[in-house]
Amino acid sequence: MAQPSNVITRLKTTIPASLRDDGRVRELAKDLFDALSAATSDGDGITRQSYGEGENLALDIFAAKARELGLRTERDAAANLVITLDGTQPELPFLACGSHLDSVPQGGNFDGAAGVVAGLIVLSGLRLDGFRPPRTLKLFALRGEESARFGRAYVGSSALFGRLSAADLALKDADSNLTLGECMSAVGADVDRIKNGERLLDPKVIAAWVELHIEQGPVLGARQLPVGIVTGIRGNIRHRVVECVGEPGHSGAVPRWLRHDAVFATAELITHLDRHWRTLLERGRDLVITTGVVTTDPREQAIARIPGRLRFSFELRSQSKETLEATYDLFLSECRLVGEERGVEFKLDRRLESAPATMDPDWVRRLRAAARGLGLPDEEIPSGAGHDAAVFANEGVPSAMIFVRNEHGSHNPQESMQIEDFVAGVAILRSALTEAAA
Amino acid sequence: MAQPSNVITRLKTTIPASLRDDGRVRELAKDLFDALSAATSDGDGITRQSYGEGENLALDIFAAKARELGLRTERDAAANLVITLDGTQPELPFLACGSHLDSVPQGGNFDGAAGVVAGLIVLSGLRLDGFRPPRTLKLFALRGEESARFGRAYVGSSALFGRLSAADLALKDADSNLTLGECMSAVGADVDRIKNGERLLDPKVIAAWVELHIEQGPVLGARQLPVGIVTGIRGNIRHRVVECVGEPGHSGAVPRWLRHDAVFATAELITHLDRHWRTLLERGRDLVITTGVVTTDPREQAIARIPGRLRFSFELRSQSKETLEATYDLFLSECRLVGEERGVEFKLDRRLESAPATMDPDWVRRLRAAARGLGLPDEEIPSGAGHDAAVFANEGVPSAMIFVRNEHGSHNPQESMQIEDFVAGVAILRSALTEAAA
Repeated sequence: MAQPSNVITRLKTTIPASLRDDGRVRELAKDLFDALSAATSDGDGITRQSYGEGENLALDIFAAKARELGLRTERDAAANLVITLDGTQPELPFLACGSHLDSVPQGGNFDGAAGVVAGLIVLSGLRLDGFRPPRTLKLFALRGEESARFGRAYVGSSALFGRLSAADLALKDADSNLTLGECMSAVGADVDRIKNGERLLDPKVIAAWVELHIEQGPVLGARQLPVGIVTGIRGNIRHRVVECVGEPGHSGAVPRWLRHDAVFATAELITHLDRHWRTLLERGRDLVITTGVVTTDPREQAIARIPGRLRFSFELRSQSKETLEATYDLFLSECRLVGEERGVEFKLDRRLESAPATMDPDWVRRLRAAARGLGLPDEEIPSGAGHDAAVFANEGVPSAMIFVRNEHGSHNPQESMQIEDFVAGVAILRSALTEAAA
Repeated sequence: MAQPSNVITRLKTTIPASLRDDGRVRELAKDLFDALSAATSDGDGITRQSYGEGENLALDIFAAKARELGLRTERDAAANLVITLDGTQPELPFLACGSHLDSVPQGGNFDGAAGVVAGLIVLSGLRLDGFRPPRTLKLFALRGEESARFGRAYVGSSALFGRLSAADLALKDADSNLTLGECMSAVGADVDRIKNGERLLDPKVIAAWVELHIEQGPVLGARQLPVGIVTGIRGNIRHRVVECVGEPGHSGAVPRWLRHDAVFATAELITHLDRHWRTLLERGRDLVITTGVVTTDPREQAIARIPGRLRFSFELRSQSKETLEATYDLFLSECRLVGEERGVEFKLDRRLESAPATMDPDWVRRLRAAARGLGLPDEEIPSGAGHDAAVFANEGVPSAMIFVRNEHGSHNPQESMQIEDFVAGVAILRSALTEAAA
C-alpha cells in the first residue's frame, strides 16, 4: 500500500525491511504468545497469578519449548525458570536477560511475557546460528513480579538476592488466605534458605541484566517510536490496606456533626492528597498517587447505613526517593488531620517499598548504539512502572531495559503490542547481547 | 438503691412505678424479643432479610403467639401478617398499629420489631382485660421496610396501597439475583394485583396508623427522655448504584494529566457534596447525605492499577421535598462538572424516592395527652429516619408515631433499648388506642 505523503507519516519511524521480514522470529513469537494466551486465558484477558496456576503453566510452556530448541533448563532455588546457552568460558560472569511471567488478574498477554519470549528467541536463534560466545547467556523467566496477589512486587528477583523478609513471606493472599511463603514452597522454592536472607545468586557472577518489556504508558505511541531505551525506574511506597475506622449508624438518624463517616473522611483524604500531588508536579517532582482498591465492608454495608469502615490500597511512585518519603510524610500528616477533624482513624498495615533505580550508563549507550546500528530510533525514556531490572540494578548488577511500544497501557486485556515493534526490540536485544558476550 | 441527690439525676425523667411494675407486659415483651433474637441471630447481630428467611421466621413467631393469645391472624394480599381484635362495630374504620419485622444485615433486634411487640402486647392485653371497643383494632407486622436488600424502602406498606411499580418489582437482590417480585411471590404475595397498582387496602377504612419505633438517633438519650412523640418523617432520594466510569491503566505508567481515575473523581465528587451539605445546614436546611456502599470492581482491582470503575450508593434525606430536589440537582450538576474535568462519566441507575410526611396534628395531641396522663414526658421529636408511617400518612391516613429511647443508633447489633422505656411507650400506645377505639 502506498504511504500517503504527509508530514505525520513522514515523521513516523519505519522498521527496516530486514527486521520486518524475519519469518523465524515472527513464527516463534506467535507460537509462544498463542500458547501462553490459550493456557492462561480467563475469558476477558489472561490471569497468571504470582505463584499460582497460570504462572506455573506459563513457566512450563517456556521450559518445554526451550528444551525442544536444544537449550538447557532448570528451576533455581526461588523456583524461577532459568534457560541457559553455555559459553566457551563458563568461569566468566554470565549475561542475563528475561522478565516475569506472572500477571495481574485480567491482565494482558504481553506484560512480562514479551521479555521472556524475546530472550528465548535470542538464545535459540544464536544456538541455531551456531554462535558460541565466550560468555554464558542465561534467560530468567521470573515469578511474582506483580504485587496484585501479595502486595509485594519483584518477589522472584528479590528472593534470588536474599531480599525477602519473614514479614514478606507472611503476606497473605486475600482470596485463599495462603501466605506467600506457603505458595512459594508449593511451587518448589527453597523457602528456608530464602527466609534466612541467603543469597541464592551472587550478583558478582552476573555481568549484566537486560530486560525487554512493553511500555506500560502511552509515550512511545504518542511519539511514534517502536522502541525506547530505559534510563531509570520509579520506586514505590505502598500499603496494601489502609482502613478508615469511623462509627456506623443509621443514615437518617445521625446528623452531620455527630457523624464519623469512613467514606466521607477517605474522600476528603484523597482529595487533599490529589491537591498536594498537583502542587508537587507543578514544582517539577516526579510522582503518581494511586488508590486502586477501595471497598466498604460487604458484611455490613447498606444504602441507609453510615459506613463505619472503608478499606483502601495506597501507592506512591517516584523516580526520587526523596519525593517518595516527602509525599509519604504528607500522607501520614493528612491521615492525622482528617482523622482528628472527622473523628475517624486511618489504620495502616505494613509499609512496603521498592527503591528507585538508575539504569547502567554503559549499557544504555550499548543498547542505543545497537538500535542505531539496526536503523532504529534510539530514544531514551524513563520507566514509570517498576520492573525486576530495578532489583538487579540495586544489587549492583549493570542493568538495562528495552521498551517496546504498546497501545492501551498494561494491566488490562486491551494491551496491544505490534509484532513489528516486538521484532525490532528483539533485534536490539540480540545485537547488544551478542556484542557483550563476545 | 437510694438515688444520689444531684441536679442531673433530679432532671432525669423517671418512669412511674405503675408502669415499671407491670410484670405481664415485661414478660411478654421478653418472650417475644428473645424468640426473635434466637430465631434470627447471625452471630454478631440479627438478620431478617426483606422477603427472606429471617423475616418469615419473625412473622411466624408473632402469628403463633397471637393465636395462643386468642387473637385472629391472617396474611394480607401483600403477605404482611395482620392480627385482629374485633370491635363491636366492624363497619367503622379500624385503628391500625404495628411496624416492620425485616432488618438490615447484621442489624439489631429492636428496629421495627419493637412496634410489633408493642402492638401484640396492647391487643392481647385489651382482650385479656375483657375490653371490647366499638372499633376494630388491627396490628400489622409489615415486611420489606428496609431498603438494604432491594434498594426500595417501605415495600410492605407501599404494596398495600398500590404504590409499587413494575420497575420496583424488577429490582434485584445483588446476592441471589432474584427480583423483588419473585421474592414477594415466594412468600405468598399476590404479585399480579400488586403489579397492576391495585389498592389491596382502602385508606378510607383505616381510622389511624400508630407506630411505635425505637429512635434511631441519639436525641432522646441526650435529653434523658424515655419516649418522644414524632411530628414528621424525612423523605429521601436514592440511587442504589452510581457507577463512575473512567479508564483503567497501569498506575506507574499513566501521568496525572492523562488519568481518568474513578476513585479520585468520586472522592472529589463526595468532597464537593460535603461542602454543599455544610452550606445548606448553615442556612437552616434539614439534610443528610450518605454513601453507604462503595467498591472498586473486585474482578479487576489491583494496588498497581488505576481504577477504571467505582460503584457507590447515594442517598439524600430531608424533611423538605424542596431541599431534596435542590440537593439532587446539585448532585447531578457536580457529576457533570467533575466528569468533564476528569474525563469520567457518572452513570446513575433508576432514581428511587420516598416523600417526606407530616404526622397528624390531632393524633400528636392525643399521644402527648396520653403520655402526660401516665406521668410521662410528652416531648415532640422529628424523625430523621424513614418509617412505614410516612406511607400511611401520604395515603391520607391520620398517622402518628411514638419513639422509644435507644442507645448506639440502629442498623447495628449494638442498638440498646431499655425495657422500662419500652414499657412506657407501650402504655402510651395502649392509652391512646383505647381512647380512640371507644
